[in-house]
Amino acid sequence: MKEQELAITLSTTKKEKPQADQLQFGKNFTDHMFIMDYMQGKGWHDPRIVPYQPLTLEPSAMIFHYGQSVFEGLKAYLTEEEEVLLFRPEKNFERLNRSNERLCIPEIDVEFALKALKELIRVDRDWIPREEGTSLYIRPFIIATEPYLGVSPADRYKFIIIMSPVGSYYKEGIKPVKIAVETDFARTVRGGTGEAKTGGNYAASLKAQEISEKSGYSQVLWLDGVEKKYIEEVGSMNVFFKINGEVVTPALNGSILQGITRASIIELLQYWNVPVTERRISMQEVYDAYKAGQLEEAFGTGTAAVISPIGEFYWKEEKMVINNGETGELSQKLYDTLTGIQNGKIADPLNWITKLED
Amino acid sequence: MKEQELAITLSTTKKEKPQADQLQFGKNFTDHMFIMDYMQGKGWHDPRIVPYQPLTLEPSAMIFHYGQSVFEGLKAYLTEEEEVLLFRPEKNFERLNRSNERLCIPEIDVEFALKALKELIRVDRDWIPREEGTSLYIRPFIIATEPYLGVSPADRYKFIIIMSPVGSYYKEGIKPVKIAVETDFARTVRGGTGEAKTGGNYAASLKAQEISEKSGYSQVLWLDGVEKKYIEEVGSMNVFFKINGEVVTPALNGSILQGITRASIIELLQYWNVPVTERRISMQEVYDAYKAGQLEEAFGTGTAAVISPIGEFYWKEEKMVINNGETGELSQKLYDTLTGIQNGKIADPLNWITKLED
Repeated sequence: MKEQELAITLSTTKKEKPQADQLQFGKNFTDHMFIMDYMQGKGWHDPRIVPYQPLTLEPSAMIFHYGQSVFEGLKAYLTEEEEVLLFRPEKNFERLNRSNERLCIPEIDVEFALKALKELIRVDRDWIPREEGTSLYIRPFIIATEPYLGVSPADRYKFIIIMSPVGSYYKEGIKPVKIAVETDFARTVRGGTGEAKTGGNYAASLKAQEISEKSGYSQVLWLDGVEKKYIEEVGSMNVFFKINGEVVTPALNGSILQGITRASIIELLQYWNVPVTERRISMQEVYDAYKAGQLEEAFGTGTAAVISPIGEFYWKEEKMVINNGETGELSQKLYDTLTGIQNGKIADPLNWITKLED
Repeated sequence: MKEQELAITLSTTKKEKPQADQLQFGKNFTDHMFIMDYMQGKGWHDPRIVPYQPLTLEPSAMIFHYGQSVFEGLKAYLTEEEEVLLFRPEKNFERLNRSNERLCIPEIDVEFALKALKELIRVDRDWIPREEGTSLYIRPFIIATEPYLGVSPADRYKFIIIMSPVGSYYKEGIKPVKIAVETDFARTVRGGTGEAKTGGNYAASLKAQEISEKSGYSQVLWLDGVEKKYIEEVGSMNVFFKINGEVVTPALNGSILQGITRASIIELLQYWNVPVTERRISMQEVYDAYKAGQLEEAFGTGTAAVISPIGEFYWKEEKMVINNGETGELSQKLYDTLTGIQNGKIADPLNWITKLED
């Protein structure tokens, strides 16, 4: 893609910003958004920042019928020194391109996307909340817009970035959650779309989550779709276990999302010289470790929650309470360190931070 | 749901109708559409027929992010006696509700949906093409419209019906297609969304189809996601084999779409006293039958194509040419009978037809 001119149209009116204590995840959006169009033969074109506004699409637009879509999630933080920090944003756009490849969506220019995102943040900089635990959640996404009911990759797309000031994803904050191990429903399978951030994976997960919530569990733990033995993810997060001093997370296998928080935790643990292993791990192994008193901690990881400690698993009609249902020491340290690096309160030893003005 | 008043707003302008020989599948749409809204606490409300028009949705509408959507496809036919016929339309709305259940979308009133559809067809009756092989393709669909980035079932939806005059789905008509057996990618898996007509299944299928097309195959045959042995579907159709005089189709197992054409073919074969069995069937069994000279015919079935004969399978670097690559006798008879019943040219022995004025 050749260098593009980014057009900016500023909003003539400003929306009222929500109070910090009223922030809900993904409900309020800033005054502007980024849009870029794709048409076969023309490529990605017409990149622009415009006032936040509804999308107008034909009812036959493919996104409404065949689910050809991908998305990303990342955050911007305002430091006490009034600097704006982004956490490994290039990783998000690189992953968006991997998702694009799986969904037959044309790739984007990572460098240009990052440049456009920075410009969008500059325009809506006032929207970044400054209170403890808050941030500006950024949602890049691509949708197929061709008005056609044939099942095939679309010839038209929109790449859009919207932004939402957020508090914590989980209202309970870093309080441990209860997780039910899902034994009936599948999120995806080898050869499927599990590794891609695409709508269908999330749509497929709703039913199991709805059932688990009725039983008092906030998320489900997904097992592999083939043998229903090996651990894949928890809710829409990656998952880690601390067993007898060693940290273990399921190895990437094509059906597990390549989490950026996941990768960062592995790198951080290695930097701390804490033993960490990516490998296949079965629910039976976790259960056996629990019975042997060696399951010390468990936690989910993702952009929205960063670290979500797990206080209890429910599997085969048995409750497994971890660390007395309390947040573990390592979970807390990882949360404090990652969020500290993200909001600029502590040093960034692994060079993860991009400053808005870099 | 209580009886609803269906409001009708007629278009003041009429679009030009495409010529019969210019009809493309799903590219042109009639002058009107049906819309009904859902809001939690209020239920489905405000059903209306309005001029065909774009949808205006917030960029945070859940359909753009988490793929919560379902759809259906059916056809209306104009007979030589100027009657309008529908083929088992109640089955489509019943299946839409089964898809809704899997995707956590509130159910619709089947009777009311059918009434609304009939009214929509009456309004756009002039759009039903009358030439041989043509029909009015009907696309009901439901999308999650709540503007919220949390992963959960939406609290707002739109149920929409659009209609498109069509020729044959496959430009080649009833000419046999070449199919590659897919051994890497998966469409879905047990416990997944395979039985539901939801966008994610189709998005997941694009990559394999794109690769097979590059090798000269028009669709792929999907094997089960667990063992990669058992036959599930072909492209976006159900699949049948005629082996040594017996017709076999994969038994419904939760990951295979409950095709209405599939069910109709089974009923028609039973009515004809042709042996037909729904059971698990492996690709190896089909290959062995081929080697033994007993694989007499194979065909895909679906609303769009009705019957799509298969002239060749490609599996494990071997080509299996079926019936010399010609349309088989039974495939042709099923096609002629089903389309004949659908367009009113032959009797309807199993009471499948609903007349618009019934």
